[in-house]
Amino acid sequence: MLYQVEMTVNIPQDMEEDTVAGIKAREKAYSQDLQRQGIWRHIWRVAGSYANVSILDCRDNAHLHEVLTALPLYPYMDISVTPLCRHPSSVREGDL
Amino acid sequence: MLYQVEMTVNIPQDMEEDTVAGIKAREKAYSQDLQRQGIWRHIWRVAGSYANVSILDCRDNAHLHEVLTALPLYPYMDISVTPLCRHPSSVREGDL
Amino acid sequence: MLYQVEMTVNIPQDMEEDTVAGIKAREKAYSQDLQRQGIWRHIWRVAGSYANVSILDCRDNAHLHEVLTALPLYPYMDISVTPLCRHPSSVREGDL
Amino acid sequence: MLYQVEMTVNIPQDMEEDTVAGIKAREKAYSQDLQRQGIWRHIWRVAGSYANVSILDCRDNAHLHEVLTALPLYPYMDISVTPLCRHPSSVREGDL
Amino acid sequence: MLYQVEMTVNIPQDMEEDTVAGIKAREKAYSQDLQRQGIWRHIWRVAGSYANVSILDCRDNAHLHEVLTALPLYPYMDISVTPLCRHPSSVREGDL
Amino acid sequence: MLYQVEMTVNIPQDMEEDTVAGIKAREKAYSQDLQRQGIWRHIWRVAGSYANVSILDCRDNAHLHEVLTALPLYPYMDISVTPLCRHPSSVREGDL
Amino acid sequence: MLYQVEMTVNIPQDMEEDTVAGIKAREKAYSQDLQRQGIWRHIWRVAGSYANVSILDCRDNAHLHEVLTALPLYPYMDISVTPLCRHPSSVREGDL
Amino acid sequence: MLYQVEMTVNIPQDMEEDTVAGIKAREKAYSQDLQRQGIWRHIWRVAGSYANVSILDCRDNAHLHEVLTALPLYPYMDISVTPLCRHPSSVREGDL
Amino acid sequence: MLYQVEMTVNIPQDMEEDTVAGIKAREKAYSQDLQRQGIWRHIWRVAGSYANVSILDCRDNAHLHEVLTALPLYPYMDISVTPLCRHPSSVREGDL
Amino acid sequence: MLYQVEMTVNIPQDMEEDTVAGIKAREKAYSQDLQRQGIWRHIWRVAGSYANVSILDCRDNAHLHEVLTALPLYPYMDISVTPLCRHPSSVREGDL
Repeated sequence: MLYQVEMTVNIPQDMEEDTVAGIKAREKAYSQDLQRQGIWRHIWRVAGSYANVSILDCRDNAHLHEVLTALPLYPYMDISVTPLCRHPSSVREGDL
Repeated sequence: MLYQVEMTVNIPQDMEEDTVAGIKAREKAYSQDLQRQGIWRHIWRVAGSYANVSILDCRDNAHLHEVLTALPLYPYMDISVTPLCRHPSSVREGDL
Repeated sequence: MLYQVEMTVNIPQDMEEDTVAGIKAREKAYSQDLQRQGIWRHIWRVAGSYANVSILDCRDNAHLHEVLTALPLYPYMDISVTPLCRHPSSVREGDL
Repeated sequence: MLYQVEMTVNIPQDMEEDTVAGIKAREKAYSQDLQRQGIWRHIWRVAGSYANVSILDCRDNAHLHEVLTALPLYPYMDISVTPLCRHPSSVREGDL
Repeated sequence: MLYQVEMTVNIPQDMEEDTVAGIKAREKAYSQDLQRQGIWRHIWRVAGSYANVSILDCRDNAHLHEVLTALPLYPYMDISVTPLCRHPSSVREGDL
Repeated sequence: MLYQVEMTVNIPQDMEEDTVAGIKAREKAYSQDLQRQGIWRHIWRVAGSYANVSILDCRDNAHLHEVLTALPLYPYMDISVTPLCRHPSSVREGDL
Repeated sequence: MLYQVEMTVNIPQDMEEDTVAGIKAREKAYSQDLQRQGIWRHIWRVAGSYANVSILDCRDNAHLHEVLTALPLYPYMDISVTPLCRHPSSVREGDL
Repeated sequence: MLYQVEMTVNIPQDMEEDTVAGIKAREKAYSQDLQRQGIWRHIWRVAGSYANVSILDCRDNAHLHEVLTALPLYPYMDISVTPLCRHPSSVREGDL
Repeated sequence: MLYQVEMTVNIPQDMEEDTVAGIKAREKAYSQDLQRQGIWRHIWRVAGSYANVSILDCRDNAHLHEVLTALPLYPYMDISVTPLCRHPSSVREGDL
Repeated sequence: MLYQVEMTVNIPQDMEEDTVAGIKAREKAYSQDLQRQGIWRHIWRVAGSYANVSILDCRDNAHLHEVLTALPLYPYMDISVTPLCRHPSSVREGDL
């Protein structure tokens, strides 16, 4: 089941560079692992912003909550969730 | 080049049913033609709304404008456009 | 799977009284049928408004979309959807 | 008498972990005690957010105020209150 | 139990003058009757607007809903409701 | 002359408890003194919030400004002012 | 006593030209009469809009309400009112 | 050429009292000097707020920018600018 | 003197096609005439919208008002105006 | 391909003056280099604000993202991006 998730990152300006680098490395590994599992279907950068538009494929709302709150950057993110479903005009078999 | 486009449809309540059906049929054909050409990459329904979230792959801003303003439902849509680019954590080759 | 749905009704002021009464009767029958099936778990009136706060239990986002767009009052409603999941502090077995 | 209450939690990022854990433990105990008394009728997690949607059954507005301001997390919450009443289409005896 | 209610009136510009006058006369009679019963405690005009700020004293949320939806001008009003309770600094015995 | 004033209090979370208690005590004394003079006509708590809805009776805008800016909690308040006047339907002699 | 008032005019597009011209002529006469009396202290056009920023000098809130609701264009205006008082840095004797 | 400028002041709560007093004294001197030159035509206090509504008469947009950014309180202000022009109904020769 | 102006066009859906075509032709001629005079410096289409972003070079606010209100599409436009001045980092001689 | 970019700068008030001066000097050099390359087509100051309106000419969305995130002031900016295209009424050959 699909959700559009928009994530905007606001890292405190006084956080140590090493700490930031560590969180970002874990975020990338975590995201890529979920992408390879097919859970995080798409992730795009919003041009000009430290933000992304993502499509997640989760079993249910609880699964989505579990995936998002485990993000290493979660404490520094504004997140908005839009539940999606198949569009009657879609020709892509997988987009459901 | 990718854009996220959110389209919300507001057809006037006094439009004739036949007219509505005709516009919707042309909208579907137009959308599916663009999907098959690879221009309209994804289209999902927003659950509970007469609205969609789409990903379009256009040559440039002018191409995007041309595609959107030719939509049969364009006069009845609220449209918001977000320019996207490849996310450094993406593992999908095609998501650029 | 649960969703909070807020529905605000705006019936056009020039709609015939009989038409309005007919739509409302079908809305009530439809809502009560879904309540008895356990799909529409709760419905409360917002005090002072022609609006309700509801909890729906649907199989997935597509099911939610199907249920909402079939509402007889759907064309006259503003609808907002919030996907819910079990709260770790909840003591009610059924609230998931 | 019922109220929908939406609570969003913003704990300061520099609060000591032990302090946070202590407040959360007292919050959970407080919430579960009120749930068992029938005052806090429902609590659901908003998927993807540190927020909840709750239904409270209080004697009056003053009782609601007393219950909410005694929340251990109250100083860190944004709270919105919607007074509810029985919906004429409801089939659940208890939803009033 | 007290509520602050803000009512803004938007009568359609093409409504017949006689119809408008009739609704306003019934609105005034209805409001004054409730004021004399002590239910509609205060009503003030917002300077420069066709709007009022009111304080209502109702038994519960359902009573408030019943009072407001019976307003002759209700179909033409935007209404916002704020539940109130006694302020610990208040010196007026009756303001609860 | 009457004004509705809505005051929302945001005391910094790192202020010393004694300092807070001192400010609140002076606020209460100041408010009750103005209430007894008939200047601060009404004060109600907004249920669930550290906020109040008040009705002030001041000689003019300058008097209102003087009264509000002298509030001990003024530096920590968001304040919105609505100028009021007698409502033609009011039956209370004093509500002007 | 001074008020800043912002008025934005929205005349229905299907109103007869003669009717519009008549209302505007009466509006201008009414405004100029109040200006000459010293009640409507200033009126400026907002560049690019059918809107004005005005300073009115009224006896009290009720007088302001009476002046504004008597505007021939009042039924077609969005109006916002800000109560003003003398600024401690002002060097103009009359700006109070 | 006239502009309406609305300035809201937010001085950090931890700034030293002496520093605040110094900035305010320079702000007042600067404002009164500009008023005497005829550049800062009017300044009014917004009742209940640490904010003002002002009318400035500048040679052009660059002059306005220079005047505003030189305000001693500028770093602590939210500023909104509305370009004005003569209103066709104005009877005051100077209001252009 | 420069202004950024954003214009969004909302032509009523029931306007006759010939009337629309006539207004648009006059709008185009008017815009191009002003562009050739150097008053309307730039006009760009907002991708996906019936809207433009423009840079106008006018003598003063009154001139800007005169230019905008003479637009054949003016009655159907939402317009926002931002006064600009030379940026200290600009290397283009003409951008003032 | 053109984009309108609006940048608003919020430098923390406790940043060292030397650090601020250094960042601003690098920002100016970076901006002027891009202007000379023809990438940063225009930059104007918003009168009264520490903000600018700019027109950028980038190869694609990814190029725009790269240019903006390399701004020395980027961590302290709010940025909004509007994709533009040629307007059918434009007479300037270069405005595409």
